[in-house]
Amino acid sequence: MFKKVCIIGCGLIGSSISRAIKKNKLAGKIVSSNRSDVTNKKIITLNVVDEASSDTKKMVQGSDLVIIATPLSSYKDVILKIKSSLKNGAILTDVGSVKKKIISLIENKIPKNISWISSHPIAGTENSGPEAGFASLFEGRWCVITPTDDTSESAIDQVTNLWRRVGSKVDIMTPAHHDKVLAITSHIPHLIAFNIVGTVADLEDDTKMEAVKYAAGGFRDFTRIAASDPEMWRDVFMENREAVLEMLGRFNEDLSSFQKAIRNNDLKFLESKFSKSKEIRKLIEDLGQAGTFDPTESKKSRY
Amino acid sequence: MFKKVCIIGCGLIGSSISRAIKKNKLAGKIVSSNRSDVTNKKIITLNVVDEASSDTKKMVQGSDLVIIATPLSSYKDVILKIKSSLKNGAILTDVGSVKKKIISLIENKIPKNISWISSHPIAGTENSGPEAGFASLFEGRWCVITPTDDTSESAIDQVTNLWRRVGSKVDIMTPAHHDKVLAITSHIPHLIAFNIVGTVADLEDDTKMEAVKYAAGGFRDFTRIAASDPEMWRDVFMENREAVLEMLGRFNEDLSSFQKAIRNNDLKFLESKFSKSKEIRKLIEDLGQAGTFDPTESKKSRY
Repeated sequence: MFKKVCIIGCGLIGSSISRAIKKNKLAGKIVSSNRSDVTNKKIITLNVVDEASSDTKKMVQGSDLVIIATPLSSYKDVILKIKSSLKNGAILTDVGSVKKKIISLIENKIPKNISWISSHPIAGTENSGPEAGFASLFEGRWCVITPTDDTSESAIDQVTNLWRRVGSKVDIMTPAHHDKVLAITSHIPHLIAFNIVGTVADLEDDTKMEAVKYAAGGFRDFTRIAASDPEMWRDVFMENREAVLEMLGRFNEDLSSFQKAIRNNDLKFLESKFSKSKEIRKLIEDLGQAGTFDPTESKKSRY
Repeated sequence: MFKKVCIIGCGLIGSSISRAIKKNKLAGKIVSSNRSDVTNKKIITLNVVDEASSDTKKMVQGSDLVIIATPLSSYKDVILKIKSSLKNGAILTDVGSVKKKIISLIENKIPKNISWISSHPIAGTENSGPEAGFASLFEGRWCVITPTDDTSESAIDQVTNLWRRVGSKVDIMTPAHHDKVLAITSHIPHLIAFNIVGTVADLEDDTKMEAVKYAAGGFRDFTRIAASDPEMWRDVFMENREAVLEMLGRFNEDLSSFQKAIRNNDLKFLESKFSKSKEIRKLIEDLGQAGTFDPTESKKSRY
């Protein structure tokens, strides 16, 4: 499908793409560039890529497809570094969790002969680094692509095809809409998880250790989400500030209503809100998005 | 172990206890009382108990062990109904998620010849009802018992033994401490999950449907928690009002700090807080409480 693919940043996502491309034989050669030479050596040893170096310009040269898989805050540096080394007609994409701000940043900086189209594979685990990646990460998951008026049809087709070939379902959104939907489905849930884990971390020592011991009562699910890569998430909240703050405002208003209802013994309010939650879960299950593929799964204790 | 056990309320927890007692041959006979005759018929058909009736007094008669597994708000009615039918020397326990208020309620109402000791098996799923129960629900889970000065050693021993025989590890706490620990490890996580699902339910229709479609980005984990039994959770927040409001206060203060940091572009604050979350997760993993028993589990996409 591609003669040469270059992945900039071989962490969980980057190394999973590389593994998936290799597994599905979608490229003649895969190379990668990482700041750290330890990483570059590791991904060669792990046979994740064919060649790796901290010399980004060199790695990018001659690539038909370049994928940026570094934290959002590094995009500017990456673009400035590679823009004059990109092959004529190359396709450039990324895998970032925020779109609006980074798309205009990149669109302003790359030459006209490069096809730029942003992607967001909605897949991941709480683990980071190239060892954490695996080839099946994208199978059955959504990948959202966010073309703009400047994006060529051919770039849309080729990037759509890439994601489908590694097992994903592809959807198209505008960058602003993507950022709003992801704010509520991913960024706010992560922020809240980070927050409650932080609240526990600040408890008195004995209560904290018991919270850890009895984490199975619900808290554990939050710690798993909150174990995600700190640098990546710091950037997400910076780059999607507007949508995150708007959704956080709504969340806070709703939480104040709950607080008031508990204080005032408002049984009816609580029960009707809790029943409504069951309905949303039902919608997710009906859409096949509940993540329970194993029929015995629902019989397992959550705790 | 017991000649006759009576379970009042055969929902997820009650029916799981009954199944576990049967599986481990811990009782000569198991009976149950439920308000609904549909439930009473169902649990006979499912072979969950040997006898069932809405006549609670009749079911309780002659039982060596009586387990209350109904929502917390029904405890008062249940106690008033059964107090004069309890066998001399019977052990009475419950499985409720809140202790302080209900223990004093029951202690004030039962005769002196009854051994009352409260239990809380920290186990469950998001499903409710007798069909949702299963015998292995308590295996490897903690069960907290909360004896008071009035509790006999023999009652502590027998109830501890019961929970161990169905596979649980048993821990002892004071009622007030139990309620504080559970507020942060279970009640606040559930409240937050109910809250964010409510926020999504109130979004405009198109954004709401997309939130459901892309739930895999983190939101899905919250909807699962928030699908838990509305009546049970309504009661938990009412009965543990004090500890929940205190912990919610801390949670809100911390969330305000995050909000401010995002607004003010405070990268350092976010990154240091997010890194701290990883440490708490590490503690849980080190304690073997991470819930990842399958070594391939960590290789599965969270989304």
